[in-house]
Amino acid sequence: MADNIIIVAGGKGLRMGEPIPKQFLPLAGKAILMLTIERFYGFDPNINIVVALPAEQREYWNKLCRECNFNIPHAIVDGGETRFHSVSNALDSITDPSGLTGVHDGVRPFVSLETIRKCYLAASKFGAAIPVTRPLDSLREVKEGNSIARLRDNYRLVQTPQVFRTDLLKQAYRAKHKASFTDDASVVEDMAHKIELVEGNIENIKITTPFDLLLAQTLVSQQKD
Amino acid sequence: MADNIIIVAGGKGLRMGEPIPKQFLPLAGKAILMLTIERFYGFDPNINIVVALPAEQREYWNKLCRECNFNIPHAIVDGGETRFHSVSNALDSITDPSGLTGVHDGVRPFVSLETIRKCYLAASKFGAAIPVTRPLDSLREVKEGNSIARLRDNYRLVQTPQVFRTDLLKQAYRAKHKASFTDDASVVEDMAHKIELVEGNIENIKITTPFDLLLAQTLVSQQKD
Repeated sequence: MADNIIIVAGGKGLRMGEPIPKQFLPLAGKAILMLTIERFYGFDPNINIVVALPAEQREYWNKLCRECNFNIPHAIVDGGETRFHSVSNALDSITDPSGLTGVHDGVRPFVSLETIRKCYLAASKFGAAIPVTRPLDSLREVKEGNSIARLRDNYRLVQTPQVFRTDLLKQAYRAKHKASFTDDASVVEDMAHKIELVEGNIENIKITTPFDLLLAQTLVSQQKD
Repeated sequence: MADNIIIVAGGKGLRMGEPIPKQFLPLAGKAILMLTIERFYGFDPNINIVVALPAEQREYWNKLCRECNFNIPHAIVDGGETRFHSVSNALDSITDPSGLTGVHDGVRPFVSLETIRKCYLAASKFGAAIPVTRPLDSLREVKEGNSIARLRDNYRLVQTPQVFRTDLLKQAYRAKHKASFTDDASVVEDMAHKIELVEGNIENIKITTPFDLLLAQTLVSQQKD
């Protein structure tokens, strides 16, 4: 029974104002995507790693791997138009329906081993598990040109990896894509399957803006100490 | 017509695992609270600054100000049991009901001048304005032991300063404290007054955890460049 991790690296890098896609931005002398892959390899050297990457970036990625002597084995599938399509493509490459499959953002290199462990453990018990944190700011809901205060205690911010029984995730992804699919949990939830929430680690940020990249550089420099 | 800013520095520092309250932690050679006060002084040197501080910290704060030659004029009022009570005390010290009054967290030293300006401008037009940002992670609502995916586009994370017409804020704070008062906007909203949302700056973090402090140190080092 093999477990899998699908790493979605679909970024075109536009939001960062950078010429190269954000998953390839350098951090600690490597591409961010390499650091992310290393985390899951560190969790389980036998995990089956599948990276969904835009077809036009594959050659560049292979070149980067050679230059950095990056040797962690991983499969590559073509990224789709949306995250849903990228995960679909990756799932098609996973033929064994036993075990667990996680889905993780390529630009979340600071997921802790503990977060990964907790998600796979909870998914093995409950079928579906995702890491969350509590919002530290107040929260408002925007509604018809107005906004309403919401109790932040009733909300959670969702990270990845989102981990599922492989057969469950495959079944969910056979559905047609809906606009309400905000993440993988919402796809599985659409079949009325309960999602178990586990505690994520606050460093597990998604590197999206230049501000995030600055924070990432700080986190990396701390890890060296 | 004088504008006011109430700076709430109620932190006991427990969440940081630090022996001193977080508003006094050093950043760029000063206490965080000093950096916060400087922002509002930089926005308007004539703004009336009122700091709500736990009574037992007043002596320590005065000593810190002398040591750092911190000379920006500000009034000090005793902090109350909760944020609501601290703001109430500060409002009592503001006798002129004309103009605008903002309420700001003492541990948000990275609010930009532009955010402050936008809030005071919008409050002068609409009576009540707060800075918000869009959540970058997916969001779930926790309900009766289950959780539901929510569209993050419908939510905003709330920062400070929350700025109001002084008479409006005073009127709102005459109400009895309710558990549903999550921030100053929710107090004013309780009188059915609409809150105008303006765009905050993402660096305007509330320094609450050691992770935030690390980020704050990075932001400060960037500002020096």
